[in-house]
Amino acid sequence: MAKGDKINFSTPSGFPEFLPSEKRLELYLLDIIRRVFESYGFTPIETPAVERLEVLQAKGNQGDNIIYGIDPILPPNRQAEKDKSGETGKDKSGETGSEARALKFDQTVPLAAYIARHLNELIFPFARYQTDMVFRGERAKDGRFRQFRQCDIDVVARRELSLLYDAQMPAIITEIFEAINIGDFLIRINNRKVLTGFFKSVGITEDKIKSCINIVDNLEKIGESKVKQELEKEGVSGEQTQKIIDFIKIDGSVDEVLDKLKHLTLNLPETEQLSLGISELETVIAGVRNLGVTENRFCIDLSIARGLDYYTGTVYETTLLGHEALGSICSGGRYEELVGVFLGEKMPGVGISIGLTRLISRLLKAGILSTLAATPAQVMVVNMQEDLMPTYLKVSQHLRQAGINVITNFDKRPLGKQFQLADKQGIQFCVIIGSEEAAAQKSSLKDLKSGEQVEVLLVNLAEEVKRRLS
Amino acid sequence: MAKGDKINFSTPSGFPEFLPSEKRLELYLLDIIRRVFESYGFTPIETPAVERLEVLQAKGNQGDNIIYGIDPILPPNRQAEKDKSGETGKDKSGETGSEARALKFDQTVPLAAYIARHLNELIFPFARYQTDMVFRGERAKDGRFRQFRQCDIDVVARRELSLLYDAQMPAIITEIFEAINIGDFLIRINNRKVLTGFFKSVGITEDKIKSCINIVDNLEKIGESKVKQELEKEGVSGEQTQKIIDFIKIDGSVDEVLDKLKHLTLNLPETEQLSLGISELETVIAGVRNLGVTENRFCIDLSIARGLDYYTGTVYETTLLGHEALGSICSGGRYEELVGVFLGEKMPGVGISIGLTRLISRLLKAGILSTLAATPAQVMVVNMQEDLMPTYLKVSQHLRQAGINVITNFDKRPLGKQFQLADKQGIQFCVIIGSEEAAAQKSSLKDLKSGEQVEVLLVNLAEEVKRRLS
Repeated sequence: MAKGDKINFSTPSGFPEFLPSEKRLELYLLDIIRRVFESYGFTPIETPAVERLEVLQAKGNQGDNIIYGIDPILPPNRQAEKDKSGETGKDKSGETGSEARALKFDQTVPLAAYIARHLNELIFPFARYQTDMVFRGERAKDGRFRQFRQCDIDVVARRELSLLYDAQMPAIITEIFEAINIGDFLIRINNRKVLTGFFKSVGITEDKIKSCINIVDNLEKIGESKVKQELEKEGVSGEQTQKIIDFIKIDGSVDEVLDKLKHLTLNLPETEQLSLGISELETVIAGVRNLGVTENRFCIDLSIARGLDYYTGTVYETTLLGHEALGSICSGGRYEELVGVFLGEKMPGVGISIGLTRLISRLLKAGILSTLAATPAQVMVVNMQEDLMPTYLKVSQHLRQAGINVITNFDKRPLGKQFQLADKQGIQFCVIIGSEEAAAQKSSLKDLKSGEQVEVLLVNLAEEVKRRLS
Repeated sequence: MAKGDKINFSTPSGFPEFLPSEKRLELYLLDIIRRVFESYGFTPIETPAVERLEVLQAKGNQGDNIIYGIDPILPPNRQAEKDKSGETGKDKSGETGSEARALKFDQTVPLAAYIARHLNELIFPFARYQTDMVFRGERAKDGRFRQFRQCDIDVVARRELSLLYDAQMPAIITEIFEAINIGDFLIRINNRKVLTGFFKSVGITEDKIKSCINIVDNLEKIGESKVKQELEKEGVSGEQTQKIIDFIKIDGSVDEVLDKLKHLTLNLPETEQLSLGISELETVIAGVRNLGVTENRFCIDLSIARGLDYYTGTVYETTLLGHEALGSICSGGRYEELVGVFLGEKMPGVGISIGLTRLISRLLKAGILSTLAATPAQVMVVNMQEDLMPTYLKVSQHLRQAGINVITNFDKRPLGKQFQLADKQGIQFCVIIGSEEAAAQKSSLKDLKSGEQVEVLLVNLAEEVKRRLS
């Protein structure tokens, strides 16, 4: 094709892609996430990118999300079929086009469908993780993507689900972010029953509780005085508003907050729901402690509620301290009626989610994470003399068999250029073998970082490289 | 939702999903594939699932594939916007709908776009791997999927690309399939220049060479007499046909085939292209041998051509011996004008591809591969007494820190039921701690496979489990 054809080969707006050094970082993080998820017995699944539209829209599950429908397009050389059928190429391929299909916009609706599809093949409690791509017709502005990877875990039961599953979530969040080593973070824990219970106790009517919770949930974004205004707009009295403000400002250590909450129940009417919430919160906190999560990693934050309607108990948000503007880097909670939706069953579950694409993109921009080397290769075997190529190939294989990633340089170029090529890709070591070295069954091992060069017998080369890599 | 709502929650036809035991097998295979790819310095990339339609259709790159266009769908609660705008919800979200977009149907066109997009950020030769999902509007029949994972490597240069990159491919294929342990396989190697050169030499005109090659490529499928018929239909003379048949039936060891080919050139006119092909084939074979691939793993098969027009040199197919009906399990070749298409540059490249979803599905059906356990958990800490839960949680964390995957059973159930639950998921070991054991800081370790049960001090538990797992 001539350059003049001017095809716009850029990615469609909002559909990001990584350079190798960034993609390698993503895989590194995915490996950590997978290791931690699996260490708690979460098992991997992946649902198709495409679901029936009726599944994605079941009972308003689409929420406010704009989703992408899919439709077959015939290749240009088969347009005749389309013209004949008078349709947009919907059936000649066995593609009937009769069922509307669309790309999934989250992992939760597909999890519900997956459970419905395989109910009798799954073992409950069903603890699964998923790290698939999801698709949303978002306005493609800073940090909002139309395709992104979301790492989710959920554990779902058919009847009862112990609160200790809720307690595992902060332990999992802690392990992941400690392993990623991104600095101090704080997991904020709350319980929706505490919130709804408290609102009930101060006399907010059932129909207003949800909107009041959403107002309170925005405390951090909009500030106290705005929360007051919004509550008053909802028809909440001045006295009630003050009680609510006092309530969400309760702070202190986890034990202090629990004590203050319990004290509160003594002075309020109708505290059944509130007390249940407090008791759940206590059980979860005790579990979190028994799992060895240190006190500096978590707190109770009565203002967080997770906007989503489906949470009914424990809720979590995770803040990167000093980088609060990033928003929550890992959130989730407990729900009752979400994943049983296609079966008409109540299925309690609890889960958390990491928006990995967004997280990486933002942490890179903020300088909190760095990209990796552009190649997984750790060694380049350089090309000194074309006639020694059989030796270079054999030495390369020998190193690979020892678990070392190797690029053999096949191109004849000056040695300095070859070192440059290695260094540019982040390869630390070059193996240099000329005819003298080959005859003596040895090599020169050059460390491009330190500039140091040592002679190593070929028989010891793999071991020496591994020693220096570790 | 009531069951009566009757949402069809099955997957759309042709969009497969795995059970956990199958998805775990896929991840296991992906880990092997990734390890081998990376050991040769191939670096990971991932391109978006969605590209501009003009990119996917550039210069007929869509081939015969039916691709899926995407279009935004507004959520039901925002249909009003759609009605107002008189459009199908294409802009209220910042989704202009002005650019046609579609799901990628292979990894090659996106690789070409990726290289064009990042030309100055990439280092050449650029060796990348990709294990993304691709989408095709295939007739969803046995073993054909509309979404499937394809594992591709390609190495691409801006000018010259050594034939030793071609030689690495059979080494990589060998390592992967030996590690997967699926029995004997044979990599069939050929060179398109040998084919086109030979056809030229026997007097087939330029315009008929492609169709003749495609006929010959089908030898295995349609048999010799049908090949003869088809060639004659193309206007190939009886004498030429006989020469072609004799040619593609050349067999023997690799060296015998090379000898026979060289002998052939002595008796034919216009052998420039043929001789070039033979010389390339010799270089590649020598490289394959130097890389330590054993003779039983590869052969020269003059009948294979890979239908795709873009191959210009080395081509590969891989047959699982005894399961030839599965077709090629890993194929590829060298091309000149494929990945430079958006830049108007010649960029030689060589690559191979494994259609992983299809491979797993067919190998499972054929009983060649087995699924893994339904969970990655290796140990279940059972729930003997609710009041010992803090101990169970601590012991579980202790095991996890030693790298063991653990499910703590939170539900109160008879011990036998808990063993059953573990066994059903493929968990081999149960850790049993009653009050007596807890007091003595020990546990009973039960091997569900052998039935054996031993007492182990808690301080030695992780080590003992690891010893028994290995």
